[in-house]
Amino acid sequence: MNHRDAHAVARPIGLRKPCALSGESKAMVITHRHEISTSGQGDAHDITPVVKRVVGESRVRDGLATAFVIGSTAGITTIEFEPGAVHDLDVVFEDLAPRAGAYRHHLRWGDDNGSSHVRAALLGPSVTVPFKDGELLLGTWQQIALFEFDTQPRRREVIVQVFGE
Amino acid sequence: MNHRDAHAVARPIGLRKPCALSGESKAMVITHRHEISTSGQGDAHDITPVVKRVVGESRVRDGLATAFVIGSTAGITTIEFEPGAVHDLDVVFEDLAPRAGAYRHHLRWGDDNGSSHVRAALLGPSVTVPFKDGELLLGTWQQIALFEFDTQPRRREVIVQVFGE
Amino acid sequence: MNHRDAHAVARPIGLRKPCALSGESKAMVITHRHEISTSGQGDAHDITPVVKRVVGESRVRDGLATAFVIGSTAGITTIEFEPGAVHDLDVVFEDLAPRAGAYRHHLRWGDDNGSSHVRAALLGPSVTVPFKDGELLLGTWQQIALFEFDTQPRRREVIVQVFGE
Repeated sequence: MNHRDAHAVARPIGLRKPCALSGESKAMVITHRHEISTSGQGDAHDITPVVKRVVGESRVRDGLATAFVIGSTAGITTIEFEPGAVHDLDVVFEDLAPRAGAYRHHLRWGDDNGSSHVRAALLGPSVTVPFKDGELLLGTWQQIALFEFDTQPRRREVIVQVFGE
Repeated sequence: MNHRDAHAVARPIGLRKPCALSGESKAMVITHRHEISTSGQGDAHDITPVVKRVVGESRVRDGLATAFVIGSTAGITTIEFEPGAVHDLDVVFEDLAPRAGAYRHHLRWGDDNGSSHVRAALLGPSVTVPFKDGELLLGTWQQIALFEFDTQPRRREVIVQVFGE
Repeated sequence: MNHRDAHAVARPIGLRKPCALSGESKAMVITHRHEISTSGQGDAHDITPVVKRVVGESRVRDGLATAFVIGSTAGITTIEFEPGAVHDLDVVFEDLAPRAGAYRHHLRWGDDNGSSHVRAALLGPSVTVPFKDGELLLGTWQQIALFEFDTQPRRREVIVQVFGE
């Protein structure tokens, strides 16, 4: 049995492009870093175009795109990225973990960003979006957004990792 | 060195099934779409059977299954899927982002679903569950659940993507 | 065309290590189980060292590491793992879903852990962290943490799955 035969036998009906023995389709991982300057708590950025670009340039057709923010005072989720909805989420975070609240974290470092840590832990640092035929499977009104929670401007590093074949 | 030798050399001790040169195990990605009709805010659906079926039919043995809901007014997480716990979560969301609250998002589109956007962004659109030997590594009382947050019935599209070998 | 040629042709410029035909780089998935004893609600564990070790021992260079907790009364996120920030998050959870609150889940099983289920569903069971050149792309003050929400001590099983090449 040669390799082409092995491949033909192994490819289950209905499955897409297993890691092939030809050069045509292979599991790949591509990792990009992207920097974003933020103005501090309440700032948000639509990073969908960045993720789309990494997927588009990757030649990976089907897979998962993960956007992950380095640091413990920012978060990533999906949202309809319009100023109203972004503001509404900010209001709920202020209600949940008020910026002017008393936090034990402040006692440790003399910081003032206890609210930032709590909000970031709740939202989480990343979102994972499937894509197919090179297109992110997002809704029309669903964007990938970075939320800055820190109390001062930050230079954020967002990792975009594309995994697929 | 033939291909079989290359594989033998490369396979680290203790690692499982690297992307093989034989037809036996290969990295693969399988993407399914699944539609669910919901009755609006407060509705929830156990989608564990759907994810299990995609994993089972995939012939992928070890990997990650991601369930991702398209749209910005629904979310996915894991929960013990019984009516009490689902209701309890709904009560907390109503406390966090009341349906009848004032949202800037309403001003933009004349919509009434500002609470839906906030809840969905907080919960997140997806969950990723590892599986091994074809079995999702969930607890007995841990299900994958879709939560509808929109204020009207919706037809939801859930992407189930299986990645592994 | 031999396999080496196929590989050379297929490797897109700028892409990293596609699933190779040589033994040097291959898509792989490694799944580890790790057990952690917790003392009940309010307890938290820094599991970054566990995830690092699985990545380090895997020989996978670039990819995603997922930490997933089995069960519906615990959660995983990233946080600056110092007692102050961990306490602050606990305070917000107690505000969101008080331990002594009335939960419908209690009526079902005679349990007292309705708050645990709500908190766990909100936080989510997993976090996914990209790594490159064998290093998790976390910030210096960003750790992967397991939060116990159950009202009694538990023996937790955390799945660490490494996916990459």
